[in-house]
Amino acid sequence: MVGVITGRMNIAYAQSGGPTAVINRTMMGVVDAALMSGRANHIFAAKHGPKGLIENRFVDLAGITGFQRENVANAPGQALGSYRKEPTDEEAATIVCNLQRHDIRALLYNGGDDSARAAAIIQAAAASSRYELQVFHVPKTIDADLLANDHTPGYPSAARFLATAMSWIDCDNRSLPGVYIAVTMGKNAGFLVASTALARNPEYEDSSPHLIYMPERLFDEEQFVHDVKRVYGQFGRCVVAVSEGIGKLVDGKFTELVVALGKSLGGDGFGGLTLSGTISLADALVGIVKEGIEGVRVRGGTFGYEQRVAAGAVSPIDRVEAYDVGRYGVYAAGLADGGSKNIGSCGVSWPDWTSLSGRTTEGGSVVIVQRPMNELVNGTPEQYSATLNLVPLDVVAPPKAKGLPLKKFMPPEFISPNGTDVTPAFFKYAGPLVGDIERFGRLELPEVGPDEK
Amino acid sequence: MVGVITGRMNIAYAQSGGPTAVINRTMMGVVDAALMSGRANHIFAAKHGPKGLIENRFVDLAGITGFQRENVANAPGQALGSYRKEPTDEEAATIVCNLQRHDIRALLYNGGDDSARAAAIIQAAAASSRYELQVFHVPKTIDADLLANDHTPGYPSAARFLATAMSWIDCDNRSLPGVYIAVTMGKNAGFLVASTALARNPEYEDSSPHLIYMPERLFDEEQFVHDVKRVYGQFGRCVVAVSEGIGKLVDGKFTELVVALGKSLGGDGFGGLTLSGTISLADALVGIVKEGIEGVRVRGGTFGYEQRVAAGAVSPIDRVEAYDVGRYGVYAAGLADGGSKNIGSCGVSWPDWTSLSGRTTEGGSVVIVQRPMNELVNGTPEQYSATLNLVPLDVVAPPKAKGLPLKKFMPPEFISPNGTDVTPAFFKYAGPLVGDIERFGRLELPEVGPDEK
Repeated sequence: MVGVITGRMNIAYAQSGGPTAVINRTMMGVVDAALMSGRANHIFAAKHGPKGLIENRFVDLAGITGFQRENVANAPGQALGSYRKEPTDEEAATIVCNLQRHDIRALLYNGGDDSARAAAIIQAAAASSRYELQVFHVPKTIDADLLANDHTPGYPSAARFLATAMSWIDCDNRSLPGVYIAVTMGKNAGFLVASTALARNPEYEDSSPHLIYMPERLFDEEQFVHDVKRVYGQFGRCVVAVSEGIGKLVDGKFTELVVALGKSLGGDGFGGLTLSGTISLADALVGIVKEGIEGVRVRGGTFGYEQRVAAGAVSPIDRVEAYDVGRYGVYAAGLADGGSKNIGSCGVSWPDWTSLSGRTTEGGSVVIVQRPMNELVNGTPEQYSATLNLVPLDVVAPPKAKGLPLKKFMPPEFISPNGTDVTPAFFKYAGPLVGDIERFGRLELPEVGPDEK
Repeated sequence: MVGVITGRMNIAYAQSGGPTAVINRTMMGVVDAALMSGRANHIFAAKHGPKGLIENRFVDLAGITGFQRENVANAPGQALGSYRKEPTDEEAATIVCNLQRHDIRALLYNGGDDSARAAAIIQAAAASSRYELQVFHVPKTIDADLLANDHTPGYPSAARFLATAMSWIDCDNRSLPGVYIAVTMGKNAGFLVASTALARNPEYEDSSPHLIYMPERLFDEEQFVHDVKRVYGQFGRCVVAVSEGIGKLVDGKFTELVVALGKSLGGDGFGGLTLSGTISLADALVGIVKEGIEGVRVRGGTFGYEQRVAAGAVSPIDRVEAYDVGRYGVYAAGLADGGSKNIGSCGVSWPDWTSLSGRTTEGGSVVIVQRPMNELVNGTPEQYSATLNLVPLDVVAPPKAKGLPLKKFMPPEFISPNGTDVTPAFFKYAGPLVGDIERFGRLELPEVGPDEK
């Protein structure tokens, strides 16, 4: 165990994996906490994450100016650049060597589960070369599928964008009724696609999305057509939200739908189609509905990268939490104390940071734990509350060789029995994270008589 | 010619074609002007546009309450519902009959070029049955391709959404460099895809989108790969914006690219692919880049219906203009005078409405004419200014039989000589319409030395 470092020291920070709308807030949390501590000489930030660590390319965030801060603190994406790379043992040794050249004693590695795994690999490399280093993983992923976290910075804002856009699409679909199929990100976890349920205006029974397909439930084309037919029969329209990660069993193995559909068309995939080797999921599902239901207007759309970097849809809680996980990482590194709680004013509350048990660990992963919400506590509506903790790296990123689950899925209590909707428990979970969004009313005027003048 | 009607009268209003973020503002402009005139008995609004006109299904907007107004005035989409339908002669006769049953003397028909054509058909049907009716077309289309209009309500907001989303995507692409291809709406006109140029931060030479493909220029796969290679070579990344309507000549005829690519794969389209009969344009272009450039990360995205109903990205000018074209339609119908100018506070200025020459016409189409912008007028930055006018219906919607152009294209002076960018003239045209959007800065810190401590 490494003790708390009491003198001045150098720390490093790296951004890794896919961008989010708020990851630069985490960078600023790291910078502000480190500078406020008065104990950071340098804050070496790797350019393009693991790439910069391996190639020894850093900038010093201790020298950040107010103008630079203004430029990037609220900009989406990774201001330092990112990269997708799990370091090999050799690369990890190079990283440790580079950190040593800068006398860096703590590395904060900001990303998803791959990044947590990279952090563990670097921590192990430091141990084997007997270099005194603490490696902390700081969470980030729009998919909310990181083990030991109830959600992760980036998720609430991506969810907010999707819920907002789907509330617009509901108005569109009511204007020109038909079937609309929207495909969202979220990898093989349903948290993101489930968030589209928050688009609904509870005042109206037919408010959409009407059907939500999560990867946690196997997809069945026949059932899908049946579901769409039922909704269309009931409301004269149907809005469907589908996760990019839905799939079905092929030879007993979970296979993503676009791959599975490709196989069903023949061994060489889509016949003569070699353009991109695949059809988009939205197009495939539109085709399935068109074949199954005649005479209905069917359209599909696939949300692009805008959903993960939607600076115009940042959730208030995400804004605060993304900053605080960075601060907390610095605190966990023993550099700064917890500082004041309750930054911002969105009702987020944190535990007393000074009680943190993991503070003198060899390293670890910062995790967010939500307190389960109830409607009322002592007769008043409950306020959102979460706890930051530090857990061992391998809790968040089990070594792949162990055969343990590497990611989290939607818990069954969030998924409705029919498998195409979410439950009230999910609304309690995601509602505060996403925050209030604008939902739209209707013009409810009685029809006039045929000859009224 | 029908004279100005001086007593109280009934009018009708219909929404047609695709939704926009602001078309309900036009409805409110109609309602407010008609009610303020004190001369409208009923404002019969057709349910689902032409469908309601044919089926004699109306609500009376004269009875709208403050709550209903609050519900829908700023909601995207068509609160009355829409429909795509060019009435046959028989249907037009039915419509005239239904209007007569309600003693309606003026019909305001709100939509794009198909709607203007429908308005002309109804006007002709009224004339042939000798029913005294004025039919006015009120403009709306996100594509900005309506003849005689410099732009149309709905376009500025859709453009604003796209420019905003592309400024986020620029941050994403800088984080994880690669090639990203975003497909926008816009039919066969380039105005919408061109608006993505407004996402660029002029402070940075590499700010994206780097390449913009408009339908006004024939698409060539080889040149496309060459363009992407060049940009990628220069900046290490490449963001491409492509209109859904791009195409090439096949047997001497303009053919949309997805159709053209399908044909090039064999007479029966995409080999065995029968799912939806087509591949998405984004996927096709991703495939082309992947085949042409090795070892580069290439992704595509297709903006969905959210782009045309983005209530979160309404342009200030669009907000005002959408309302005013509705007011103007009522004024053109001789019901109300022009009222006060300069509603709102976004710097839009209108001509003196009382001078309107078309006021006693048989009907017509409301059009928006922008005054060309110069940088400076008398040494001060020029303010956006536009004129509303009334023109004959067949100017906006020439009868199809005449072989005249039915829609407007981007003028050549908006397209750069290389065909993959816009010109300063386009920025002057679209900049005020879209309004200021948030563009993001960079963290420009010097790299530290390899052994700095």
